[in-house]
Amino acid sequence: MAVPGFVYGGLIASLIDCHCTGTAAAAAYREQGRTMDTEPGIRFVTASLHVDYLAPTPISAQLEVRGIVTEITKKKVVIEAKVTADGEVCARGKVVAVHLPESMLKTGENS
Amino acid sequence: MAVPGFVYGGLIASLIDCHCTGTAAAAAYREQGRTMDTEPGIRFVTASLHVDYLAPTPISAQLEVRGIVTEITKKKVVIEAKVTADGEVCARGKVVAVHLPESMLKTGENS
Repeated sequence: MAVPGFVYGGLIASLIDCHCTGTAAAAAYREQGRTMDTEPGIRFVTASLHVDYLAPTPISAQLEVRGIVTEITKKKVVIEAKVTADGEVCARGKVVAVHLPESMLKTGENS
Repeated sequence: MAVPGFVYGGLIASLIDCHCTGTAAAAAYREQGRTMDTEPGIRFVTASLHVDYLAPTPISAQLEVRGIVTEITKKKVVIEAKVTADGEVCARGKVVAVHLPESMLKTGENS
């Protein structure tokens, strides 16, 4: 649900999700000593997402999302994220990201 | 991130979030022996959201979201949800919902 004047929690979840899967990919490239414009591409999807909503997020504020990698293995990358609105922490998130399954890539190419 | 042919995980998180805060309100009305069209209104926001993505969710499937209340107190309602695509479970979620803070309501009225 959304409350006028505030950012919808589902959007905050999406922000965290999107930022963390991107961070996971960046971390995996770095782990392999590669830049992100080199092939083969590395892409992650979300295995699990957790968000704690600490304070209402005002819709007019400038939002910042920052993630840090807390674990990286061959199979997964774990990222913890923080959403701030004009400097105040509004939400904390944790994402477990895994490599894009080949089945999804194939379907995507055909769609 | 979104993969062509599949539902974006952030949208699934939003579906779960929205369905569970609605379920929380319905449960609170029921707890008070009231129907949902009676005043004063009861409205919930999300304190925390957890989603486990179990399988890719095909974009063309019919989705169903079902939530069950696992805990209800004066302060919070806990709901567990399941998203199925054409009958297959794609995601499981858990939401801790709390009453809408008065501060949010006032701001909302003024915006």
